Amino acid sequence: MRAGFAGSLSPVSAEPAVATNLFADRLAEAVERKRSQLLVGLDPRPDLLPVELVGDVQVDRPAAAEGCARFCRGIVDSVAPHVVGVKPQLAFFEALGADGMRALEEVCAYARAAGLLVLADAKRGDIGSTARAYAAAYLEPRGEEPPLADAMTVNVYLGRDSLEPFLAACRRHGTGLFCVVKTSNEGGADVQDLVLSDGRLLWHHVARFVHELGEELVGGRGLSNIGAVVGATHPRAVGEARRLMPQSIMLLPGVGAQGASPADLARAFTSGPASALVNASRSVLYAFRSSGEDWRTAAALEAARLRREVWAVSGW
Amino acid sequence: MRAGFAGSLSPVSAEPAVATNLFADRLAEAVERKRSQLLVGLDPRPDLLPVELVGDVQVDRPAAAEGCARFCRGIVDSVAPHVVGVKPQLAFFEALGADGMRALEEVCAYARAAGLLVLADAKRGDIGSTARAYAAAYLEPRGEEPPLADAMTVNVYLGRDSLEPFLAACRRHGTGLFCVVKTSNEGGADVQDLVLSDGRLLWHHVARFVHELGEELVGGRGLSNIGAVVGATHPRAVGEARRLMPQSIMLLPGVGAQGASPADLARAFTSGPASALVNASRSVLYAFRSSGEDWRTAAALEAARLRREVWAVSGW
Repeated sequence: MRAGFAGSLSPVSAEPAVATNLFADRLAEAVERKRSQLLVGLDPRPDLLPVELVGDVQVDRPAAAEGCARFCRGIVDSVAPHVVGVKPQLAFFEALGADGMRALEEVCAYARAAGLLVLADAKRGDIGSTARAYAAAYLEPRGEEPPLADAMTVNVYLGRDSLEPFLAACRRHGTGLFCVVKTSNEGGADVQDLVLSDGRLLWHHVARFVHELGEELVGGRGLSNIGAVVGATHPRAVGEARRLMPQSIMLLPGVGAQGASPADLARAFTSGPASALVNASRSVLYAFRSSGEDWRTAAALEAARLRREVWAVSGW
Repeated sequence: MRAGFAGSLSPVSAEPAVATNLFADRLAEAVERKRSQLLVGLDPRPDLLPVELVGDVQVDRPAAAEGCARFCRGIVDSVAPHVVGVKPQLAFFEALGADGMRALEEVCAYARAAGLLVLADAKRGDIGSTARAYAAAYLEPRGEEPPLADAMTVNVYLGRDSLEPFLAACRRHGTGLFCVVKTSNEGGADVQDLVLSDGRLLWHHVARFVHELGEELVGGRGLSNIGAVVGATHPRAVGEARRLMPQSIMLLPGVGAQGASPADLARAFTSGPASALVNASRSVLYAFRSSGEDWRTAAALEAARLRREVWAVSGW
């Protein structure tokens, strides 16, 4: 812990070491070994916890955070055989304040110990020293501890130089990025589908921009450490995104509770078995609420079912 | 604390109460009373702290977070007579993990107790239940505690429905938003300056979108609770932004360490004395590093100087 902790926010070293163990390669290895392209999103909500964990969460924020941490650890145990990673959604932890962030740290460490990759769904985007601080928070070793996450999501509205500190972290530590390109919500069209003067949609431009960012960080399987979030509620968008970003790993939310079907996704996988990841959050976490089974069993069954369905659709 | 804590992430109530005490009005009152349009950004970096606070920060993260909290509290004390609020930059707190988030909570409460408004610089942007969780984290009461912040910054790339939960929080609790429209970094042009098929720049479109969002939340002084971040490093942009968003409070970073001069800013203030806020972070926080004075004195002097300069430029 002692070595240069306070220096973790210092400007990028002039001679960065280049990581050899890229996120894209670690992911590809995990996908092939487990025959799974599934992530489970960790979106813990105190008001939706199983009854056995609800006990104390009404009391105060520390109790709510502990209830959420226990729930997430149980989910990790249940889904670990079926998924390659978890995607903690930071908002749900931040909503519980500092106690929630402590829970996030515990859950990330627990998932890593279970052999899972951790994708921090943060969608951060800022400039200069602020972007460096975000990269330090999530993608760089913290003292002698490993990075909190193996990869994180970022927003590109602030342009290339706002992404450079994240790219620098990826180069040095082998961590990965998923840039928000096309989202699964209806309102995503308000900005992302604007037509540019050259006739392209804005998100097509952003997709090429992300492709170019990722060209310097392509691993041994031909996949880049710089991936893209592409809403799976737009089946045509998935194919267009693949054409524009042939080397990017696509993170596909919108399956399950948001409504897309695995059949919509096939085109995402044409660049290899690990070239896309399907994320399911509520449909796995809260499966017990409709199935009536034990929450761990319900999550495991739903994760196993989705994993098989996605693997079949992927054609690998 | 007991009442319905776990329900804070529940969907928006069908019949929201409408707040009467709008952020825009509270801000306008503070600006006129203090004759100040200055914010100080709280960007605490363990490696830049004054020597008297550096002592323990090398040891571990809790010590670094405590050093940063002490620094921020000292800055709040020093600048409180000269500023209307502080703008904690969440990245620097997140970089210190859960301990940093605890420090953030302390510093926000301390600033509020000192009579300052708190603008959380978060630049969050996500969809559906995730956006609701972010709004709950920063813009809504937490149990019996007040909201962490009076206003926060958000990213609009995910469109109208991604902003709706934040707008709902503003309606119910009188809190405010600052939408990122045009940023102060060079790379901001990569996306924000793209030319649309109708000949407008993308950020001009976003500015109108933000103006329209804010029309329903205009306070007694004619200013909306929905403001905009406009980089002060683009002097022409400031005037264009004012024309496109006549009722929005403009949050202007880029003064001081990032290089814009107060004279660049005059056009922002044409909608009233509180129609723009100038933020200075490093130039105030770390003034002691060049002046050689006590860090509190140096911050107070620089804040007082900037406050006078901005007030003069504003023409009020």
